[in-house]
Amino acid sequence: MMYVYKTMEEIANFIYFASKYLKEHQVEEFINLLVSTYNNKWSKVLVMGAGRSGLVARAFAMRLMHLGYNAYVLGDTIVPSVKKGDVVIAISGSGTTKLVVAAAETAKHVGAKLVALTSYPNSPLGQLADVIVEIPGRTKVSVSQDYFSRQILGIHEPLAPLGTLFEITTQAFLDSVVVELMHRLGKTEEDLKEAHANIEL
Amino acid sequence: MMYVYKTMEEIANFIYFASKYLKEHQVEEFINLLVSTYNNKWSKVLVMGAGRSGLVARAFAMRLMHLGYNAYVLGDTIVPSVKKGDVVIAISGSGTTKLVVAAAETAKHVGAKLVALTSYPNSPLGQLADVIVEIPGRTKVSVSQDYFSRQILGIHEPLAPLGTLFEITTQAFLDSVVVELMHRLGKTEEDLKEAHANIEL
Amino acid sequence: MMYVYKTMEEIANFIYFASKYLKEHQVEEFINLLVSTYNNKWSKVLVMGAGRSGLVARAFAMRLMHLGYNAYVLGDTIVPSVKKGDVVIAISGSGTTKLVVAAAETAKHVGAKLVALTSYPNSPLGQLADVIVEIPGRTKVSVSQDYFSRQILGIHEPLAPLGTLFEITTQAFLDSVVVELMHRLGKTEEDLKEAHANIEL
Amino acid sequence: MMYVYKTMEEIANFIYFASKYLKEHQVEEFINLLVSTYNNKWSKVLVMGAGRSGLVARAFAMRLMHLGYNAYVLGDTIVPSVKKGDVVIAISGSGTTKLVVAAAETAKHVGAKLVALTSYPNSPLGQLADVIVEIPGRTKVSVSQDYFSRQILGIHEPLAPLGTLFEITTQAFLDSVVVELMHRLGKTEEDLKEAHANIEL
Repeated sequence: MMYVYKTMEEIANFIYFASKYLKEHQVEEFINLLVSTYNNKWSKVLVMGAGRSGLVARAFAMRLMHLGYNAYVLGDTIVPSVKKGDVVIAISGSGTTKLVVAAAETAKHVGAKLVALTSYPNSPLGQLADVIVEIPGRTKVSVSQDYFSRQILGIHEPLAPLGTLFEITTQAFLDSVVVELMHRLGKTEEDLKEAHANIEL
Repeated sequence: MMYVYKTMEEIANFIYFASKYLKEHQVEEFINLLVSTYNNKWSKVLVMGAGRSGLVARAFAMRLMHLGYNAYVLGDTIVPSVKKGDVVIAISGSGTTKLVVAAAETAKHVGAKLVALTSYPNSPLGQLADVIVEIPGRTKVSVSQDYFSRQILGIHEPLAPLGTLFEITTQAFLDSVVVELMHRLGKTEEDLKEAHANIEL
Repeated sequence: MMYVYKTMEEIANFIYFASKYLKEHQVEEFINLLVSTYNNKWSKVLVMGAGRSGLVARAFAMRLMHLGYNAYVLGDTIVPSVKKGDVVIAISGSGTTKLVVAAAETAKHVGAKLVALTSYPNSPLGQLADVIVEIPGRTKVSVSQDYFSRQILGIHEPLAPLGTLFEITTQAFLDSVVVELMHRLGKTEEDLKEAHANIEL
Repeated sequence: MMYVYKTMEEIANFIYFASKYLKEHQVEEFINLLVSTYNNKWSKVLVMGAGRSGLVARAFAMRLMHLGYNAYVLGDTIVPSVKKGDVVIAISGSGTTKLVVAAAETAKHVGAKLVALTSYPNSPLGQLADVIVEIPGRTKVSVSQDYFSRQILGIHEPLAPLGTLFEITTQAFLDSVVVELMHRLGKTEEDLKEAHANIEL
């Protein structure tokens, strides 16, 4: 079972080094946008992504709701109309996922602020976005020759297939943004528990 | 923004130490069950969890499908009848989530093999299960006085609220199980890509 | 293709006669509850059902949102905490669906008002409910000897299998409740369109 | 409560007259495609729609699974790769829903057969489709001056708002297609029950 343990270590390392790799001004801009959105009680946040990135989006949307946001997920039954003043957060490693880009175009068209979490700031999604947070993922790392990839991956390809490293790193990043927001908004774990679903599947 | 970075480090550390904490015979039993299920082409795997644990379940089910399994998720539109010979995997940190325990009872009743991923092997879910994999989570760690918790958490409470550490650690573990299965089943990344949805949201 | 046309006629007939069969005091009580819930801006409505009944629940929840309700669906990513003063609407033809009954118990436990839409008022779900609306379905009709079933079905078994007639009749009923609510709440079609998702799948 | 009863009658009437309005060669072509798809055990059927049309799609996909099809829904967690030989069924009253049209383009691109259920055969979705079934809906009827609309609606606008009449009529039509398929494929209600989920929400 060496692959189980080696991959868990790889994931842990990747998340650790990713925390160094994040661009501070991007993270700051993203969190400031979320804080100002919270303070406008009419604003909504719609989070979206396809496939496993969509699940990362959903996990973040749940926590935003626990924090008191009007948070929604593309693909849920309940999705309100998005307007100027709302924030749409799109997650796509490649930044090219067709339906996500199509939805992002509509978001821009109706005047929402668009955030992209992606490995590729120059992708179609990245180019539409008002705020970008670059999150490293497998592809990016494996083709690059920089210090970051050598640190984590040495000369080997990563073990985790496809978008795994992007997805779990984005998950770790967003879970960490939640902690930052707790402090900035003065929310305790009790507050989150109070807002947590008590009937759920 | 110190909380963003500190929490990412906490998560990375937690996953790393959790890989040491996993009980090898439990992991082996789980993977052997998955390998033998793959070899029986009529067997199905139904994965389930509530809330954010349900999202972890979904992310794993997607990869099982990419590996060639007949994989399903409780809560999806398409859920087939579960029978003897099928495997049901339930994810619940506390092992007490009401609807998950109710569904697990039915799974046992119809003769499926039940796997529990939980921090509490003696919980209602754990007691129903045929195979258990113990995954550390926040609660467990914060009340324990053992080496593991001191290593990771020192004397402080973790930053990440509620079930976050259990959820992301379970995600990392299952993503690592996927890599193990790739090697045991002789699957390449190309095989996974071939099975990946090409129309998705 | 005679079965396509015959079944459409059967469904149309069933919905028509069901509108005569509904108990007026039950419908009145349900609508009054929804009107008073609307007028309390903090109240939430959580709708739920399993399988195809769950889809009927979702279709109704969307329209409640279009009408301006704080509406949610069990199984969506975003499900808030349910409290005293909230309304939970459960849809189950048989009134015995295990996970729906378990969720209904929790709803009662936390002090929410429980509405059951079911063919069986004496079922486990019916017995938990504060408000019941009896909706005819296949089983009920096929075993009964009353005027209603003879009118619709003659001496034959219905063509539509399993819960089909219950599900589509409940859908038609709830779509009709929406029209009643539009008039009682003074909402126009334009109001609904304004609240309708503009980015959706 | 006159609106509840009047709207149920309107819906019943609409479904009844719609059964006369359907174009027989379109229905025949759709059913023949489904029968031949069933007979090719490797073929998959992916059903899709946005909002309430998406729920109609899901209800049909469940029944296709009960009939023994490899049926999937866009938006579910488990969605396999779509290939030549597969069938994609898109439901959209207007035929213009952006994400559905984008997904339909991809379906055509990968060589799947595309079916459109729509009120507008000349819409973007209709123009992409290999097989079209025209289903009347509110808009279509309300602007037309033909016998059909006068029969059902007289000189009044329909009571049911937005896409309601299209959605429930499509639901009734697809539920009726299921009965036709039961007869053509030699399936009994017992067969459907056997394939029905036994753990579900």
